[in-house]
This record gives sequence, structure tokens and C-alpha cells, in this order.
Amino acid sequence: MNRCILLIVLTLLPQCSLGHDVATNAKYAIVIHGGAGRISTDADHRTQRQKVLAHALSHGETLLKEGKSSLQVVEEVVRILEDAPEFNAGRGAVLNAAEQHELDASIMDGKTRACGGVAGVKTVRHPITLARHVMTDTRHVLLATDGAETFADQLGPENIQRVPNSWFTTDKARKNLREAQAVVPMPTEFCIGTVGCVALDLDGNIAAATSTGGLTNKKFGRIGDSPIIGAGTFADNRTCGVSCTGVGEDFIRNSIAFNVSAQMEYAGSSLNDSVQNLLNDKERRISGGIIAVSAAGEITMQFNTGGMSRAAADSTGRHEVHVAE
Amino acid sequence: MNRCILLIVLTLLPQCSLGHDVATNAKYAIVIHGGAGRISTDADHRTQRQKVLAHALSHGETLLKEGKSSLQVVEEVVRILEDAPEFNAGRGAVLNAAEQHELDASIMDGKTRACGGVAGVKTVRHPITLARHVMTDTRHVLLATDGAETFADQLGPENIQRVPNSWFTTDKARKNLREAQAVVPMPTEFCIGTVGCVALDLDGNIAAATSTGGLTNKKFGRIGDSPIIGAGTFADNRTCGVSCTGVGEDFIRNSIAFNVSAQMEYAGSSLNDSVQNLLNDKERRISGGIIAVSAAGEITMQFNTGGMSRAAADSTGRHEVHVAE
Repeated sequence: MNRCILLIVLTLLPQCSLGHDVATNAKYAIVIHGGAGRISTDADHRTQRQKVLAHALSHGETLLKEGKSSLQVVEEVVRILEDAPEFNAGRGAVLNAAEQHELDASIMDGKTRACGGVAGVKTVRHPITLARHVMTDTRHVLLATDGAETFADQLGPENIQRVPNSWFTTDKARKNLREAQAVVPMPTEFCIGTVGCVALDLDGNIAAATSTGGLTNKKFGRIGDSPIIGAGTFADNRTCGVSCTGVGEDFIRNSIAFNVSAQMEYAGSSLNDSVQNLLNDKERRISGGIIAVSAAGEITMQFNTGGMSRAAADSTGRHEVHVAE
Repeated sequence: MNRCILLIVLTLLPQCSLGHDVATNAKYAIVIHGGAGRISTDADHRTQRQKVLAHALSHGETLLKEGKSSLQVVEEVVRILEDAPEFNAGRGAVLNAAEQHELDASIMDGKTRACGGVAGVKTVRHPITLARHVMTDTRHVLLATDGAETFADQLGPENIQRVPNSWFTTDKARKNLREAQAVVPMPTEFCIGTVGCVALDLDGNIAAATSTGGLTNKKFGRIGDSPIIGAGTFADNRTCGVSCTGVGEDFIRNSIAFNVSAQMEYAGSSLNDSVQNLLNDKERRISGGIIAVSAAGEITMQFNTGGMSRAAADSTGRHEVHVAE
């Protein structure tokens, strides 16, 4: 009898004591972007961006090492970036033509391909969390404007923190709007700062999330690629997870996030080539950046603009943060 | 001199007298859907659907024969269907959970991949026309709810005809809402009647358009696949044009309209196989129908529901209308 108990203890021991990653030889990977375009040369701004990205990356990596789900990781990382005024998402979001903030976000679970998005919300501190509730608590995948606000009302303050629209405003957003209103057509640098995160967890599940304030001086009611699954965000355990940043209209008309996955699925392209093909495509002419993680744990972060704030880490020991070039 | 004039006249003659199609040996093709699901067995309803589809098809075919652009054709055909109370688009649209109509539409030009969409509009008689104005008159591709209404205001009544929200209501929509509110989860048959059209014109240009009232009893602010380029509508002269109908959430999470084109572009699949693969995919499990036209003029119209109202015609003489199975 004693021998039997010992056998049971020995059988259970490895998975109890050695932890999730070692027991399964599993990989993790995380990649983050903070927008592509011409990054400000202001030293303080760059230092602050570097600091926030480094914090977000470390937080995400810690969760992944603990065996947390990629879904939880991408949501938490994006919440950190939404709270940072240096990025165009949540606090720090740009102003639209009506001098208001309209926030967009989406999230997707590569395991189930469940997904959720919100567009044009005005009083939700963390749009990515509302997007996750659309995914888990409704039969829909995209809720917009007043309807999304009503949904937030129903979820209550214990689930969704609300703020006045002016809470999102920064001096930089006001300055950018004044400059944008004086310039036609809109230059690319006015849309810098969308944030996104893609992660592969120790269970092999991929998730992706994107959040943005959209384009400075955008027409009221404009929806960009960020809240749209397949355009700004996509995740499928069979291929990859993707988050995009740039001129959203181009990303919608070319279904860019899904397009990366489609090249892997249908053409057998590598993750890296799939992203590169799109950024180099002379016909599609998209302008921006793409981050992605494959099911095998490869990371790519590419852009065809002046720069892209980005960060990456994985279970091989890679850990890097770049603010611009 | 006389001989010279005769030569010029003879040289010019074929293109003047024989018309656009014969001179270029060009093809045209048009396909229309009026929604997939369980089609009503009511004889009058079926007869009326048949009549409207036949009229829309003939109108579209006539325009194509005259050498009109596929973009004009898909817009005009969808306007006819938006005005017909037998379909869930424009007049005849379903009611949402708040007993209102929120209309979605999108249109795409396969030549330039320019596109436009509107979501959640409440007072626009022809949402497809507003979508076309988003495409041609803004730098955006998707405008939602109040912002889209404001845009319609700016375009003025000479461009965009407005109606009170109640103008869209039919007895059938009221009855469906009452039934839907008594049933959880929502059965597929409550989303019947989205309309769409895809056409290839004599110049080899493809266009696609989709318009819908969405799901009966949908949550306020819900955006389905119909206004989303890549999900409900897609067109690219290099591959095909596509319009979808069904449970929109599944079409968004699988970027179905673009997915058809992606299989042709990346896997070299035929138009027919690309559509069939998606409707048979055990993992994606989409429910609905897909119509498409390839750059070569092939037409496909497939569904995995009880039925789909559909019609097709092309320059080989094909001309057919089906209301259900």
C-alpha cells in the first residue's frame, strides 16, 4: 500500500514541481506595437515610450511564464498602453473632427476564433476590455457607438470603468488636431500610436488585441481597421496572430490581418514572408506596420513607415524594446 | 482622297456599329442574392420575391449590355432590392432589440479596390448609395450610426433620400421580432433576406455590393458582416467579386468575402472550389450563402442553409431566377 502511494506521488511529481513550461517543453512569445509612422524626435517622449513599452513587455512576459492564457496577456498589455498618454489609445487618443475621442478596439482568441470589437466608444477607459466582453457576453462580434456604450452601462462599473470623454485628452492631441486641420491631405504621421499585442502561451494558444483612437481629425463615425477582425486584428492557432497599425482604410480594403494568415494557410508562406509580401506589395500600397506571432513561436514586427514603436520577448531569452527605427 | 475616306470609315465601322461587346468579344456576368436560410413557404411571398429578383436581374443585365460599369449595376440592382419589402434590406428590414431599424451596406470596386460602407443608419432609404458616397467622397471606408447620418445630411436630399425609421417597417418584421424575442438562441431563419449583387462588366471590371437590416432582435449598435469589406463584400479584378449572406458574426471572424479571393490568389483554387471549401469547412462552421463572379466571368451561388433566393445571367445567354432550394 505504501509502495502504491509512493508510485502515485512520483507520477504526479514532475508536473507539480517543475512547472508548466519545463514539463511540456512549451514555448511562449509576445510582441507589442505602439504605432507605426514618423515617431517624434522629442527625447522625453521617446524615453517615456521606451519605459511604458518595457513595462508592458515585462508584465506580459511574466504572465506568460506563469502559464497565464495569451488572451489574458494581450488584454492586460493593451490596458497598460491604453492608460499611457504617449500612445493613441485610451488616454492620449487623438481628437476627431468634432474635437471628441472615439475609441476602437478588438480582441481575438486563436483557439476558438471567438472575437469581439467595439467602435466609436467615448466613455470607456479600457476599450479592449469592453471588446473582450463583446466576445464573451454577447452573440455579436462588433458593437458600435451608443449601442456599445449601452452595453457598457449594462456590464456596470465593476466590469467596465467609465470616464468623461475629456479624460482622454492630452495637450499633444489638441496640438495634433490643430495641425491636422491646417493640412490636406492627412499626412501619415497624424495617425501614430495605435497599440497592439500578440501572444503565444505555454498551452500553444495564440491571441491578438488592438486598440486605437483612430485618425486625428477623422470624420465623426469613421471606423478604422482596429476594431475589425480580419483587418486590424486576427488570431488562429493553426497559423498565427496579427495586430496592425497604419492607415486603417488600406488595412480594411486588403483584409491585412487575415491576409497574413491566409498566405500561411493557402500558399504555405512563412510568417515573415507573409508580412513582408504585404508591406512590399506595389498594388496594395498599404502604409503602416504589422506585428505577428506564428503557432511555432516565431515573432515578426515589420513596417514600411519611418518607424514603429515595438517590443518582443520569447522563451528563448529574446527581450527587446525599440521606440522608433 | 475618296479611297482614303472610305478606308477610315471602314476602319471605324466595327466599333461604331457592332457595339461594345461584339467589338471586344467581352463578357459580362451578374449574380444576385436575396438572403440564405429557410425561405418562407408562403406562395404569395415566393411569387413576389421571384418577381422582384427577375426585375432586378433584367435591369442589371440590360445595363451591362449597354456597357455600363459594374459599379453602377450593383448599386442600381441593390437599390431595387432595398425598396422591395420582401427582402431584409431598406424597406422590409428586420427590427432590432430596441424595435428600430439599423441598416448596413457596403460596395467595392474591383478595379481600384476603392470601397465604402455604412453601418447602423436609420433614415437613409438606400444605404448602398450612402456607402458609395463614403467610397467616392471621403477618405474613409466605413462610417457608422450618427456619423453616417451626419454625412448623409451633408450630401443633401438631392444625393441621399431620407425617410423616417418607421418607413422601413413591415408587418412581417414586427411578427418576426415578436417570435425572435420568444426564442433563445436566435434561429438562422430570422436573418433571411440580406441582399447582394456582384457583376463583371464589358470592360472586365468587377464590383460587389451588399445591403441588410441585420439580425432580427440584434443588440443595438451591432454591426454584422454586410458593411465590412473583406467580410460581407469584396471585389478585386485580379480574382473575383463576392457578396455574402448568413450569420454575419461567422463571416467576420473568417473574413469570408476576402477568403474566397485569397484562395484563388494564394492557392490557385477555382472560384467554385474556393466558395465550396468555405461552406463545407468543418472548423469554420459558417452558416449562409455566398455569391461570386470571377474575372473570367464564371458565376457561383452556393449555400449550406435550407435555401437561398438568387439569380444569375451572363453573356453566354444564361438567365435564371431561384427563390428557395
